[in-house]
Amino acid sequence: MSLPAEFHEIAKRVNNWGRWGADDEIGTLNLITDEVVREAAATVRSGRRVPLALPLKQDGVQSGMIPGRVNPLHAMVQINQELFGPGTVACSDDIVTMGLQAATHWDALTHVSHSGRIYNGRPATAVTPHGGAEFGGIDKARHVVSRGVLLDVARALGRDRLDGGHAVTPEDLEAAEDLAGTRVRAGDVVLVRTGQIQVYLAGDREGYGYPSPGLSVRTPEWFHARDVAAVADDTLTFEIFPPEIEDLWLGVHALDLVEMGMLQGQNWNLEELSTACGETGRYAFLLSAMPEPFVGATGTPVAPVAVL
Amino acid sequence: MSLPAEFHEIAKRVNNWGRWGADDEIGTLNLITDEVVREAAATVRSGRRVPLALPLKQDGVQSGMIPGRVNPLHAMVQINQELFGPGTVACSDDIVTMGLQAATHWDALTHVSHSGRIYNGRPATAVTPHGGAEFGGIDKARHVVSRGVLLDVARALGRDRLDGGHAVTPEDLEAAEDLAGTRVRAGDVVLVRTGQIQVYLAGDREGYGYPSPGLSVRTPEWFHARDVAAVADDTLTFEIFPPEIEDLWLGVHALDLVEMGMLQGQNWNLEELSTACGETGRYAFLLSAMPEPFVGATGTPVAPVAVL
Amino acid sequence: MSLPAEFHEIAKRVNNWGRWGADDEIGTLNLITDEVVREAAATVRSGRRVPLALPLKQDGVQSGMIPGRVNPLHAMVQINQELFGPGTVACSDDIVTMGLQAATHWDALTHVSHSGRIYNGRPATAVTPHGGAEFGGIDKARHVVSRGVLLDVARALGRDRLDGGHAVTPEDLEAAEDLAGTRVRAGDVVLVRTGQIQVYLAGDREGYGYPSPGLSVRTPEWFHARDVAAVADDTLTFEIFPPEIEDLWLGVHALDLVEMGMLQGQNWNLEELSTACGETGRYAFLLSAMPEPFVGATGTPVAPVAVL
Amino acid sequence: MSLPAEFHEIAKRVNNWGRWGADDEIGTLNLITDEVVREAAATVRSGRRVPLALPLKQDGVQSGMIPGRVNPLHAMVQINQELFGPGTVACSDDIVTMGLQAATHWDALTHVSHSGRIYNGRPATAVTPHGGAEFGGIDKARHVVSRGVLLDVARALGRDRLDGGHAVTPEDLEAAEDLAGTRVRAGDVVLVRTGQIQVYLAGDREGYGYPSPGLSVRTPEWFHARDVAAVADDTLTFEIFPPEIEDLWLGVHALDLVEMGMLQGQNWNLEELSTACGETGRYAFLLSAMPEPFVGATGTPVAPVAVL
Repeated sequence: MSLPAEFHEIAKRVNNWGRWGADDEIGTLNLITDEVVREAAATVRSGRRVPLALPLKQDGVQSGMIPGRVNPLHAMVQINQELFGPGTVACSDDIVTMGLQAATHWDALTHVSHSGRIYNGRPATAVTPHGGAEFGGIDKARHVVSRGVLLDVARALGRDRLDGGHAVTPEDLEAAEDLAGTRVRAGDVVLVRTGQIQVYLAGDREGYGYPSPGLSVRTPEWFHARDVAAVADDTLTFEIFPPEIEDLWLGVHALDLVEMGMLQGQNWNLEELSTACGETGRYAFLLSAMPEPFVGATGTPVAPVAVL
Repeated sequence: MSLPAEFHEIAKRVNNWGRWGADDEIGTLNLITDEVVREAAATVRSGRRVPLALPLKQDGVQSGMIPGRVNPLHAMVQINQELFGPGTVACSDDIVTMGLQAATHWDALTHVSHSGRIYNGRPATAVTPHGGAEFGGIDKARHVVSRGVLLDVARALGRDRLDGGHAVTPEDLEAAEDLAGTRVRAGDVVLVRTGQIQVYLAGDREGYGYPSPGLSVRTPEWFHARDVAAVADDTLTFEIFPPEIEDLWLGVHALDLVEMGMLQGQNWNLEELSTACGETGRYAFLLSAMPEPFVGATGTPVAPVAVL
Repeated sequence: MSLPAEFHEIAKRVNNWGRWGADDEIGTLNLITDEVVREAAATVRSGRRVPLALPLKQDGVQSGMIPGRVNPLHAMVQINQELFGPGTVACSDDIVTMGLQAATHWDALTHVSHSGRIYNGRPATAVTPHGGAEFGGIDKARHVVSRGVLLDVARALGRDRLDGGHAVTPEDLEAAEDLAGTRVRAGDVVLVRTGQIQVYLAGDREGYGYPSPGLSVRTPEWFHARDVAAVADDTLTFEIFPPEIEDLWLGVHALDLVEMGMLQGQNWNLEELSTACGETGRYAFLLSAMPEPFVGATGTPVAPVAVL
Repeated sequence: MSLPAEFHEIAKRVNNWGRWGADDEIGTLNLITDEVVREAAATVRSGRRVPLALPLKQDGVQSGMIPGRVNPLHAMVQINQELFGPGTVACSDDIVTMGLQAATHWDALTHVSHSGRIYNGRPATAVTPHGGAEFGGIDKARHVVSRGVLLDVARALGRDRLDGGHAVTPEDLEAAEDLAGTRVRAGDVVLVRTGQIQVYLAGDREGYGYPSPGLSVRTPEWFHARDVAAVADDTLTFEIFPPEIEDLWLGVHALDLVEMGMLQGQNWNLEELSTACGETGRYAFLLSAMPEPFVGATGTPVAPVAVL
């Protein structure tokens, strides 16, 4: 099996290898300039903060379908332990084991490869068993703070949530821009709402994952044209699953992460944000979505917050 | 052994139990109002972002002294795995096991108890072996975005870093306020720089932990008077260690977390921030320091960012 | 809710508290004397070895029903890593995270408590969050080598496997003794075969766990009368599940572990052993089933072997 | 750097590739025939059992020198939890995270490779990031029960423990045979005692690991000549460390595991066994040392027991 010709054609058009130098490890995050951040801060009107992470817990979104991607297993190792003797101040401590892509997360640029390559044309072998990603690990993405724009596709199409078979197209994104009353521009972090996370919130993990609406393989060109810094949505797979083109599994991943070098976010809960934006009619805000700097990791849990 | 009378006297003066209702689980985070956040956003001048988390890695700050508080152990579970057949897009996934208080972190209000009580007078037994903190877990602190103020005590005292035996006093904090040219006010998140983290960065883990400068048991009253929302510093123990009052181990923890209900942060790297603030002469900024919402956890890794 | 009177009556009859002294932490393992082991070694005829552990893997027997009891999560941390330079001998290393009761395992005597007590009348509070079982942990059971006897109840009753609702009674055990042509005696480790593990081996995890045949609440008296050292079977719950007496959940656990101080084994694969014993007509053998000495643990994976 | 000529010459002489067929995954364990096991059972005289595993705990033998090889981290996930309602039988459950080579363990044949090869000439790439060892994993070693022979080199040389720089030679092994009054023969599991583990037991982890006495690169030929099934000792590194031949790091590992296909054991506590054998003058016994069947693992904790 090999990737279809259509994929390679799009790849050529969105490719950013070398754009920020041969040694660049952060891709489109380069587009978040100080000026972009100043403007992002200026979008703040009410001071309302909306968190976008799902609770981290053992009955999280993972259903066991993806080997090794385990929900957070939390355990206490100290409970009210009087470390310095009876009657002293007592401590509680805890540990966790989890898949870094298990919950609300960022994919690092190294999360996928195709044709033996990762972002910037480096060999895929830069990801190793003993140290993880020696190039393009999530620790290289030092900070993700920018203007966030909610593209509420479900609302723009008059739907509570999109159907499992709905591929979100550039036209859908533009309909959501119209609703938002703003244009996506260079350095923005775009949040695409399908409403699919409602399925998980209602208790159906399998149904949440499959079939799922998600981004069309046509969207990377749109993000590329707008010079978007990162994209996140409210699905398990980010892109439509199963894919719209037969046998092109994870094509959007490959275009975004490998070709463009653009961070992707998954399992973001955009429901409260959708309500908040709907109330004010304003869909742009300051977004902080800092990666935990796991050295060499190909992903990280993230606790994003929108400041409206 | 019991806690000294001096402790109980301070405890009475800083106690916030019931201040935000009997069911309140977030304490002084209530002080971060929308207005505070609006003003915080308005402090942004350059758009420069400074991350404050240490890299998460196996040779992190923990030396093995605190049982169960393990440095992050990162492992790959998939490397360039062609899940959908040969020639398809390939995935890399990873897992981590770590102590939630092991690296740059927030203590939840339930991280310590004294005299059988946690914040808001609840029994310490609210922390259980099977679900962690049923009250006051870190997942209850939905968002931490506010005005941040760097109180650079080391610089204010003309030191590169404070000595191991230096207890940071209210007078020190006021000297740092003078340097900063701003007054700490209600809802601020205060970052206190001692410079101690340089010891870890230079490779000496044991020396980083002990002896360590840190906050004096006299500081909680100062934070209480200013209605500070949260405090973080650049040490392993937060407070001076060993303590200034014999046998009063973790007294500051007990006053801040249990009595005031004020979040504490430890192992924050404030070096780059110190340089940045020194260059501009401005020590106030927008701070985003979102807790990862681990359900029932008594702490969480955090990746804070200052936006200047 | 409280435990039914019937339970307390049986408890009195099987109670071993104080039998081996007030400080005893191993209960009926005391019955495995040197003489018992000499006789066990003398049962070896062919030298054939039959392992009884299920493979340890992520799709193990746990279905997610029991919180925290996670199947083994295995990950490589080094793969062919040339630690001493290019061209040198290369190493592979791995890690695992797992529930100690997740797979083929022994319950420690402290795995359950009732009415605030564990074995030998100690308070249940001997199991603590920071160190586990301070009394009766699995590390105290230094060695488990004895005569093993397979009581193949399924075969004795002419069945491939027992129905989900079948409570294995003393009469069933005696029918299996007749089939075995031997009597269970002091110090024996008894393996009870229901055939239920076939359900898991056929791919049905939920069906394996529930409903399940298993030991009747009447069996502890029988084991007590025979002075059995330990009992294991081929089910998830050990005892019939749901229970035969309404609201008496885990009654057999409480009688065996708390009252008698008798180790229990679960998820043992007795299929190959059943075949081997059927071929020779001999159901007694040397059994080695060494606990991994996890300090303070309330259970442990075990890799038992029968030597025929 | 490449392996010295001397290594390759020995390798040729001890190579077992193809000896048990091209598909063989267990190597010298093939030498443990039913007859060997029958004779092993016949060595039992007293019925005394001596366990050989170190306690599994967070302050185990690992000092942090080997990345990823973490000591066992044990945590409770349930403590006396009344799962079926108040007043019912209460359960305690625990989890562990650990390096599979961290404590008393067996190396699987795939634990090392050299020149791109593992045992039986298979490519080293048979060890993969997503499933571990697809060939020669520890789960393939179904059972390890045989005659054990303690070669108490320290005692034979009139020493309490050997010096850090002592390479155990074939001559040393034969001196220990003389002491034992038995000859090592086909299918035996040989336990070599240096006494080095006393250093760990006395609290010195670093000193335990380095410098360490251990097997000389000349011993594989001796084990090969005797057709030994497996070898274990009481050191961290198994072989002398640092090595006797400059730049030949882990040469014994490569000869034993890759060339011969012979299981190796490390961190076995042979002190009590030494005393027991010294008392009776008998150094041969029944040994059960069952690997935990972690699928695809390159090592496993083991709880060996000698039955005398």
